[in-house]
Amino acid sequence: MQNGTRLAAVDLGSNSFRLEIGRFEGGQIHRVQYLKETVRLGSGLDAERNLTSVAMQRGWDCLARFGERLADFKRGQVCAVATQTLREARNRDAFLARAHEILGFPIDVISGREEARLIYQGVAHLLPQSDEKRLVVDIGGRSTELILGRAFDARVVESYRVGSVTLSMKHFSTGQFTAHAFQMAEIAAKAVLDEALNAYRRDAWEVAYGSSGTIGAVGDALTAAGWPAGSVTREGLDWLLARLLKAQSADRLQLDGIREDRRAVIGGGVSVLRAVFDLLGIDKMQAAQGALRHGVLYDLLDREQTQTDVRSATVQRLVDKFETDTAQAQRVGKVACHLFNQLQGGPATAGPGSNLRKLDWAAQLHEIGCRISHSDYHKHGAYILDNIDALGFALPELHRLSLLVLGHRGKLRKLEVDFEDTLFVRQLLCLRLAVILCHARRDPDLKGMRLAADPDADHRLVLACRPGWAEAFPQSAHLLREEVAAWQKTPWTLQLAGC
Amino acid sequence: MQNGTRLAAVDLGSNSFRLEIGRFEGGQIHRVQYLKETVRLGSGLDAERNLTSVAMQRGWDCLARFGERLADFKRGQVCAVATQTLREARNRDAFLARAHEILGFPIDVISGREEARLIYQGVAHLLPQSDEKRLVVDIGGRSTELILGRAFDARVVESYRVGSVTLSMKHFSTGQFTAHAFQMAEIAAKAVLDEALNAYRRDAWEVAYGSSGTIGAVGDALTAAGWPAGSVTREGLDWLLARLLKAQSADRLQLDGIREDRRAVIGGGVSVLRAVFDLLGIDKMQAAQGALRHGVLYDLLDREQTQTDVRSATVQRLVDKFETDTAQAQRVGKVACHLFNQLQGGPATAGPGSNLRKLDWAAQLHEIGCRISHSDYHKHGAYILDNIDALGFALPELHRLSLLVLGHRGKLRKLEVDFEDTLFVRQLLCLRLAVILCHARRDPDLKGMRLAADPDADHRLVLACRPGWAEAFPQSAHLLREEVAAWQKTPWTLQLAGC
Repeated sequence: MQNGTRLAAVDLGSNSFRLEIGRFEGGQIHRVQYLKETVRLGSGLDAERNLTSVAMQRGWDCLARFGERLADFKRGQVCAVATQTLREARNRDAFLARAHEILGFPIDVISGREEARLIYQGVAHLLPQSDEKRLVVDIGGRSTELILGRAFDARVVESYRVGSVTLSMKHFSTGQFTAHAFQMAEIAAKAVLDEALNAYRRDAWEVAYGSSGTIGAVGDALTAAGWPAGSVTREGLDWLLARLLKAQSADRLQLDGIREDRRAVIGGGVSVLRAVFDLLGIDKMQAAQGALRHGVLYDLLDREQTQTDVRSATVQRLVDKFETDTAQAQRVGKVACHLFNQLQGGPATAGPGSNLRKLDWAAQLHEIGCRISHSDYHKHGAYILDNIDALGFALPELHRLSLLVLGHRGKLRKLEVDFEDTLFVRQLLCLRLAVILCHARRDPDLKGMRLAADPDADHRLVLACRPGWAEAFPQSAHLLREEVAAWQKTPWTLQLAGC
Repeated sequence: MQNGTRLAAVDLGSNSFRLEIGRFEGGQIHRVQYLKETVRLGSGLDAERNLTSVAMQRGWDCLARFGERLADFKRGQVCAVATQTLREARNRDAFLARAHEILGFPIDVISGREEARLIYQGVAHLLPQSDEKRLVVDIGGRSTELILGRAFDARVVESYRVGSVTLSMKHFSTGQFTAHAFQMAEIAAKAVLDEALNAYRRDAWEVAYGSSGTIGAVGDALTAAGWPAGSVTREGLDWLLARLLKAQSADRLQLDGIREDRRAVIGGGVSVLRAVFDLLGIDKMQAAQGALRHGVLYDLLDREQTQTDVRSATVQRLVDKFETDTAQAQRVGKVACHLFNQLQGGPATAGPGSNLRKLDWAAQLHEIGCRISHSDYHKHGAYILDNIDALGFALPELHRLSLLVLGHRGKLRKLEVDFEDTLFVRQLLCLRLAVILCHARRDPDLKGMRLAADPDADHRLVLACRPGWAEAFPQSAHLLREEVAAWQKTPWTLQLAGC
């Protein structure tokens, strides 16, 4: 990346929306601007888990302001991510479509673990380099992320569905701070978090860091009251709880360091924080500067290069986890990319976000469903991809991969894809052809084979083979004829010439 | 099992229905009676994969005759299994409900791999004991099973969707035997089977055996023509093909050893057999006496004892495959069974098919979905169980396990279970309570805890705790209160006493 390039991260959190703009300079990202608005989208989920129109409007208004600031940014310079509230909202598509329009950039809803990974990246990049074993805690509005990591490597990542907004709505809805309410809130938080006990043992980390609003606010309040700056201790938390109880309600709370917009969620936030301290045996937590948005910025950098694209590593991890036949997966990937290059006219670059790279990922993953069962394994593979926590991937991006895996064999008629999406259709066809050509799990003979779009007819693709090929490979030829029939159920035509 | 006990296996195949009755004597099963009818259910699937009413009636009529013969058999003495046609038929439930009534015994639709495993058991039990590495091939009406095994251990099992009925319908529908039709049929068979190439390499076995009708008929025809008895060779197959071509059609075929009811499917059957010989490099195949129905009979024996219940081994294999936290799974299983025994009044026997054993299996498996993702892992676990090839399990039995896994946490309202099925509800409750009580992944303190049905109220179960328990375990008590609320959405009431 060129020095001076500007990058922007937008974080649509459950409590706040944030915009961080940075400038790339000498391997680092330096802050240009930071905007934060307390949108509290997470409190706008109704009982049916639909976002209310009022809450959506608050979100859109904020994004309009952010969008203005981003008017001269290009696609690859901006990444916008949404977290727990939009993971949960049933009507998120309606919100996101309009939000994309207003912001001018698409918004990726990321999984909880992906959020955790990015938080860790953000925290790690803004800390001095060190080999210490870290625990990073991020208490958000509707979710709490726990990460164990070392240097830039997040090793255990998890996201739990409890946060400052959810707990405050349930246990402090009247704004009253009673000992009983705090006790119940802490128990409820522990009930969600105590699955973490096993993975996050006390001996697995050396220093605990807290990222995000809740911990920042608590740290600020303690510092303002004279506690040592930069960290939160167990004693400090006890003192803070006593202060909250003494105030008796959020309205009457007078505490330097706690901003107005934090009052409504401080009860829930402190309860989650106390639960985390207690469960994980924490005595002291350092306030971290880095957060989700910084991780997003550094991820934009990493994706520039294949070697550092975390998505490649994730694909490899999935391949290992589900023990696929890697030789076959690589063979299919090679053939699929070869055909795709022919079709697109010359080798495409495998640069960031390139379609070629995604096609190859689909090939690497196309057989992972076999771990569940050989029959209908394409369906199982798609199910896995739609449900797994694939670090580095946004959910829609992963769903596209899942559709490629689902469609790589079998009937096309019922496949719920947009057949007007030419790029996707081409990826799909290349993957299917590659699977057919590699059916015997040997490298196929591709000499003289050529896949091209028919210049005279829309929606028509032609696969040409050299004379004698069909006779030499009758099985492959048989499967190709079946493939032609499969495409007849779609708006596209596959035509064979000499196959 | 007592000497003299009679056992019966019913095999609802795609081409024939079979009834095998045996008598247990000195560790062996000796034939008492064998009935076979050519029902050809598999040719009664229409384009929408629905069984036609005519085909269903043929099946029911046959089962009525079988049922008469089984009138004095008890539940544990009979096992009826259905294979590919009923795996595929969309209206199978309609067929099976009536079939159960008519036969007097439930019918288990088994997965392709389970079928393969049972075939191997049948073949192995009727062969002399030996340490040879075996390949067993069973060409059925709509599926073909390939198995690699040694002694009584089926090591690689697979089922492919191609058979004598399907190929005959597609390539010999007019009854004409042409060289082109045979060539096309063989190519089509290979297209389905060649995924087997990798697992069934030539060096993986020493002796090939063929089970079932197609291979039996071919062997009989060759023997009748003077070829050496008891096996099929590649030369024999070539000779047979030449005879079929010479006859020009099924109607005009005159061949000793081929019975009238085999004519209609011999074209497809020979094509699959030739494809298998060619793909797997077979020169000679021994005709095996044992078949699916024998495997079913020996399985009835094995289930008598926990140690030999193949289902226990399958559960263990799944636990390994999906790398669950086995300590936690065993802990949950122990607690769930403890509560279930209290509820049912005294320790139930863990005998064959016992509900206690199934509850324990559900506990062993309840976290397998974590392999896909921690969030909604209960749903992923249920998906896996509904789709995996779990050897030894019938599909409905597996689905019951899947429902227990699905329902072991979360809301009960949307769970599609029959809440009038008291036994299932009790299993479900015990599993849920066990998961709650083990939430901290430590052995819970169960002293003084008692689960019982309220003698004065239907649909009411009471969990009593000793004084002080709730104070000692506030988290567990909190989760139990949430559990009470969850059951309020069902016809059942969970009441806490002192918790």
